[in-house]
Amino acid sequence: MATAFLKMHGAGNDFAIFDARQVALAMPPERVRRLADRHRGIGCDQLIVMEPSTRADVFMRIFNPDGSESGACGNATRCVARLLGGAATIETRGGILTAANAEQGVTIDMGSPRFGWEEIPLAYAMDTADMPVAWSELERPSAVNMGNPHVIFFVADANVVPLESLGPEIEHDLIFPERVNVNIATVLNRSHIRLRVWERGAGLTLACGTGACATFAAARRRGLVDDSATISLPGGDLIIAETAGGGISMTGPVSTAYRGETDL
Amino acid sequence: MATAFLKMHGAGNDFAIFDARQVALAMPPERVRRLADRHRGIGCDQLIVMEPSTRADVFMRIFNPDGSESGACGNATRCVARLLGGAATIETRGGILTAANAEQGVTIDMGSPRFGWEEIPLAYAMDTADMPVAWSELERPSAVNMGNPHVIFFVADANVVPLESLGPEIEHDLIFPERVNVNIATVLNRSHIRLRVWERGAGLTLACGTGACATFAAARRRGLVDDSATISLPGGDLIIAETAGGGISMTGPVSTAYRGETDL
Repeated sequence: MATAFLKMHGAGNDFAIFDARQVALAMPPERVRRLADRHRGIGCDQLIVMEPSTRADVFMRIFNPDGSESGACGNATRCVARLLGGAATIETRGGILTAANAEQGVTIDMGSPRFGWEEIPLAYAMDTADMPVAWSELERPSAVNMGNPHVIFFVADANVVPLESLGPEIEHDLIFPERVNVNIATVLNRSHIRLRVWERGAGLTLACGTGACATFAAARRRGLVDDSATISLPGGDLIIAETAGGGISMTGPVSTAYRGETDL
Repeated sequence: MATAFLKMHGAGNDFAIFDARQVALAMPPERVRRLADRHRGIGCDQLIVMEPSTRADVFMRIFNPDGSESGACGNATRCVARLLGGAATIETRGGILTAANAEQGVTIDMGSPRFGWEEIPLAYAMDTADMPVAWSELERPSAVNMGNPHVIFFVADANVVPLESLGPEIEHDLIFPERVNVNIATVLNRSHIRLRVWERGAGLTLACGTGACATFAAARRRGLVDDSATISLPGGDLIIAETAGGGISMTGPVSTAYRGETDL
């Protein structure tokens, strides 16, 4: 029996979205890997399943192409919010997020960044604003948890860092017991950052929403940016800002590519 | 208005297939590039449009992701044949192909290879069985036209050739006025060849049907294989054989990934 899905993207970060609010859908890792295959399946950066929630309008499960689950995905949250009309509460394994329509697309209150070393998590205690570690020329990063773990390196030119090779090495370093998303950032001025991200379980993507938030939070903590900034990713721009409640909001575009039906 | 399409693949060589037999579909290059984008569109190695034919069951137009048109695509021909029930005649810009159901999927009579230097085409006259040219360590290839132009290098280990860098260089060399598909082949024995292909206008793909046929034809001409051979591509195996009529048949699997509807 064919199952319906929607293919959407936010700034080029693309998702296959299944609606399991009425009828449950099993997503064992082998099925996720098959559906996420860009040649033999649907192809996507993340596979999303909308499930019922007793605490919010929807529970959003997030699967990486390798079959593993993720606790947060900012761009997918915007896409799911748009499907629910824009204004919506969305529960993930990383917490409940609130979405609203905005002039530039959809805005999400991504909650507060966490900086405790055991919250990232790291394997042992250290200063997460200025970590005394290095991989090749990448050194002294910050670490932030935005529902999922991030490490952020501030460099003079993000475009020349060989992220294809260093990304997987850092992702799997034992210092990150739950692995990590690797952000390479260049602060252009106090309201503009250029960013490339190696996503845990997904590799290089065109845009990573939680990475943009984590990078803003780390830059803010180092005093490098004002209270809002445009984060320019390969797939487009996201606008990240501090909220009145001390959290971080992310605003950006949402697009639907097509509707599909596939055998599971 | 949403337009229906089907996503299919043959040995991992994947296609978005539109049916314009009843209602015409315009496919200007910008639209092809947008639909072929794997993050913002459907994503495919080639985009196929089925059109009416007065000479065969269907006319198959083949677009590369860069918007250019191709005269032949063996794997897509098998997919379209399956949609028509298996036994079908399929007209392309490269000629009319005949398909039939087979135990291993669908078999296509791909017609006869052409070896004339002006038929490939090459920029000037030379022996197409043993061309006196070289790019880096790649040298003395053969050239074959299978509805589209191919150059074939026979090497000791196809897997170690840096095709990502040499592919585009050779594709755009002035010796190939209509550009070229670049095949890197290792003859394992007289009925088995390992093959990697850099496709003109598409880059590295998991499987190239005309490349498998062209490589078989070039190997046969050099006396390296018997009258049928398994061609192992990264995406799977194709069986290539000589036909009674002097042509070449290609047999291989066909799969449907999903049905979709998209705005054009």
